[in-house]
Amino acid sequence: MAGVATTQDVFMLFGDSITQGSFEPGYIGFGQRLAHVYARKLDILNRGLSGYSTDWGLEVLKQCVVKRTDETHPAPQIRIITIWFGANDACLPPSPQHVPLQRFVSNLRQMIAIVRAAASGHTLPTRIILMTPPPVLASHRAALLAARDPPIALDRDFLVTKQYAEAVLAVAAIENVAVADIWSAVFKAAGEEEKNLDKFLVDGLHPNKAGYQVVYETLIVTIKEQYPDVHYDNIPFSFPEWKEINWDSPKESLDNVLFRRLIKRKNRDNPPPI
Amino acid sequence: MAGVATTQDVFMLFGDSITQGSFEPGYIGFGQRLAHVYARKLDILNRGLSGYSTDWGLEVLKQCVVKRTDETHPAPQIRIITIWFGANDACLPPSPQHVPLQRFVSNLRQMIAIVRAAASGHTLPTRIILMTPPPVLASHRAALLAARDPPIALDRDFLVTKQYAEAVLAVAAIENVAVADIWSAVFKAAGEEEKNLDKFLVDGLHPNKAGYQVVYETLIVTIKEQYPDVHYDNIPFSFPEWKEINWDSPKESLDNVLFRRLIKRKNRDNPPPI
Repeated sequence: MAGVATTQDVFMLFGDSITQGSFEPGYIGFGQRLAHVYARKLDILNRGLSGYSTDWGLEVLKQCVVKRTDETHPAPQIRIITIWFGANDACLPPSPQHVPLQRFVSNLRQMIAIVRAAASGHTLPTRIILMTPPPVLASHRAALLAARDPPIALDRDFLVTKQYAEAVLAVAAIENVAVADIWSAVFKAAGEEEKNLDKFLVDGLHPNKAGYQVVYETLIVTIKEQYPDVHYDNIPFSFPEWKEINWDSPKESLDNVLFRRLIKRKNRDNPPPI
Repeated sequence: MAGVATTQDVFMLFGDSITQGSFEPGYIGFGQRLAHVYARKLDILNRGLSGYSTDWGLEVLKQCVVKRTDETHPAPQIRIITIWFGANDACLPPSPQHVPLQRFVSNLRQMIAIVRAAASGHTLPTRIILMTPPPVLASHRAALLAARDPPIALDRDFLVTKQYAEAVLAVAAIENVAVADIWSAVFKAAGEEEKNLDKFLVDGLHPNKAGYQVVYETLIVTIKEQYPDVHYDNIPFSFPEWKEINWDSPKESLDNVLFRRLIKRKNRDNPPPI
């Protein structure tokens, strides 16, 4: 079997529909914007799963951060991962998406442990960023669900989702990882008035263009302040800019770029004895 | 060293700045749109390199489609690759980006050979799509270059780029691979009048939002008609939709999804004897 994609390390976006939809045309979602600013630096892998809770996401994550055993191969590494759940976990019982708050906390902590375990052999660390679910505009959501045939009872609540957002903040503190507090950023942008959330949510639940703008800005500030080593300004291009190529002998500039980078990393991790 | 990204196969976008910029906010580029429609199906890897000709791209491609030797690992495979050069190769001498037409043809054929060689061990084929460079609006380009300090002479020409586009069509025919003829599609959209190209190009060279719309539509029709097996409608989700999960026993639905898929592939390629 042949493989691929050894060229760049990755920035994995792991979460639910708000992550899955982050490249939607017309929204300028955070996935699209990250893919733009990290072009030629990190590959953005969309691991958003519409409707998923942490219960189900946990099983998926185990398969997304598989630890490789082949030591000789410069496999792509996860340089950053966002973990963004809560919007579905916070569904009200008896929704099959509902995950009790304590299990939600436990699932997030297990996800962090999985990422850390897979990263333990990396030459570079994996930067973990938790994200809080956005606030819910229950009246809008209720109206949409009531209009369905047959009508559906309201499945999410402003204060319950807020509890899940707070739980994410608590996990970040306990586990000592960064957090992008989307709940607070969107609520603040809405003037801390639930009724104003429609300016940022398309259906009382998912961000619209203005909502994704807040998401991107909150996330990129978190990266810049907490993990400057993986901010796009601080990651070099995988291959040189065209003006930096030796035009008379391009092979010299372009040959074995990946292996040279690997060796450079190894040297940094294991400096030669003085 | 730990690895990652075994979850999904990939759709690689290989080319110059028109590929690199395909996620730019405000443009709804073909990269963004592919990332949206292929979410949970294939990872879109942006391998666009601003300013690169085929001379330099050839060296890069060798490192982007590395053949793996580890037979036991379900490594991601390149299911589709777009190869989109010509915009820089067609630069007029003495530009360092200029590649003579015959070498351009030879470089493209070598790129196809590299992809085919790496794919030879795949359980699934790699679908190759050549793309023709968009037409150039030389008057706009000339004005922009003349306004630089110091002024720069016009480096591209409508008819020369047209020759490179025709060469791409010829290579596609010789090599029996699909081609998305962007040159003709954009020129047709402009009413076959060079002066109308400004509606589709931002600077006489790179597509704007309307230009990328033509690019996406031309490419997706090419996929649908020439390689329906890799059209997004025909590729299943990597992990099941949330409503299809066995809610009482989610592990049953979610466990070992990737290895199950690998085994399914192997069975299809090597059916048991009757």
